[in-house]
Amino acid sequence: MNKKAIVLLSGGIDSAVTLYLAKKKGFCPTALIFDYGQRHRKEIGFARRIAGKARSPYRIIKLSFPWKGSSLLDRKMHIPKRPFNNIKKGIPSTYVPGRNLIFLSIATSFAETIKGDAIFIGAHTQDFSGYPDCRKTFFDIFKKVITKGTKDGKRIKIYTPLLNKNKKEIIKIGLRLKVPFKFTWSCYEGSRNPCDSCDSCLFRKKAFEELGVKDPYHEKS
Amino acid sequence: MNKKAIVLLSGGIDSAVTLYLAKKKGFCPTALIFDYGQRHRKEIGFARRIAGKARSPYRIIKLSFPWKGSSLLDRKMHIPKRPFNNIKKGIPSTYVPGRNLIFLSIATSFAETIKGDAIFIGAHTQDFSGYPDCRKTFFDIFKKVITKGTKDGKRIKIYTPLLNKNKKEIIKIGLRLKVPFKFTWSCYEGSRNPCDSCDSCLFRKKAFEELGVKDPYHEKS
Repeated sequence: MNKKAIVLLSGGIDSAVTLYLAKKKGFCPTALIFDYGQRHRKEIGFARRIAGKARSPYRIIKLSFPWKGSSLLDRKMHIPKRPFNNIKKGIPSTYVPGRNLIFLSIATSFAETIKGDAIFIGAHTQDFSGYPDCRKTFFDIFKKVITKGTKDGKRIKIYTPLLNKNKKEIIKIGLRLKVPFKFTWSCYEGSRNPCDSCDSCLFRKKAFEELGVKDPYHEKS
Repeated sequence: MNKKAIVLLSGGIDSAVTLYLAKKKGFCPTALIFDYGQRHRKEIGFARRIAGKARSPYRIIKLSFPWKGSSLLDRKMHIPKRPFNNIKKGIPSTYVPGRNLIFLSIATSFAETIKGDAIFIGAHTQDFSGYPDCRKTFFDIFKKVITKGTKDGKRIKIYTPLLNKNKKEIIKIGLRLKVPFKFTWSCYEGSRNPCDSCDSCLFRKKAFEELGVKDPYHEKS
């Protein structure tokens, strides 16, 4: 029987590729989709479609971050729009305090309950090196949390297959695995069409351009 | 200005004493109350009353554990009722996978957002030594998670002031701090009156008896 995995699925490129990678590695994945008050809540619909295309079951978890503290949660704040070469400076306001920690904790609870073997998360450090909860040291410590804080401490493994990749490399892997990028959503704004100017749109655009591949991003309506 | 603390408040004895201890230590606490589908949801009302009595602001966080996996979440399961001397054997079905991990993660997000200095949790190992997420090793690792996974890694401290105490000692501290135990709720069943036979009721009963103090538990309606 295939090993059971939980894959954190946001609707963006990274987690979609991670879902397909988990399947490729022989896991039987269930996607965990978070409805956490994100401005681009629209991504949830895309996450569901990606899970459908990958024929993976999914669960939607509703969460509230009533304290906001991020432009991704607080519509009164502005999503940063800045020249591409400026993106790397500092932690952007789109950082959501504790997000990966909470998502991984909930995934751990799920994995412990269903006797799952693995949790996959598509975080990577290349683009947003400023997010403290996307660093290798954070994931390394979280692995220890699982060892100490669950019943069967050694069962659940954390996989971060994209940790050292950049967006271009991730898309390349995705193309090889036939990830239907048409059904992914990246824009932080979550309007009808991608804004083409937030960090997330810019990274996506640049990576597809560098690969010389047409992004099916604008085909959707 | 007083340092800011987040106190996990369930409505039971341990967290009520912890809230009063945080105040005693000079912190300005905000209580975090979780509405997570617990069978004894009734405790939430008690938690609110305790926060009110302590003049502490509070936030209620709604969460879903759609996978159940615990008799505290799943009404089809039975809450164990057993002779007192049998309580310590194994992890009881009331264990909720990942609960403290999730609660602490959400508290971390809150603390990071409001620039809080501390998180207080009233967990202790004396009674339920079987719960993996109540052990010192778990909290020690979680402290490291905060160091690695938050913006200002060294700011937020975790306090577990009751970790090595048993229920009798905890109640003794509470009596000294004038914790209004009348407004606490312990029973897992969450019916109109305490069942007097679940583990939680039994520990409470035994501790008050040993102290020779009348438990105001049954005075409420």
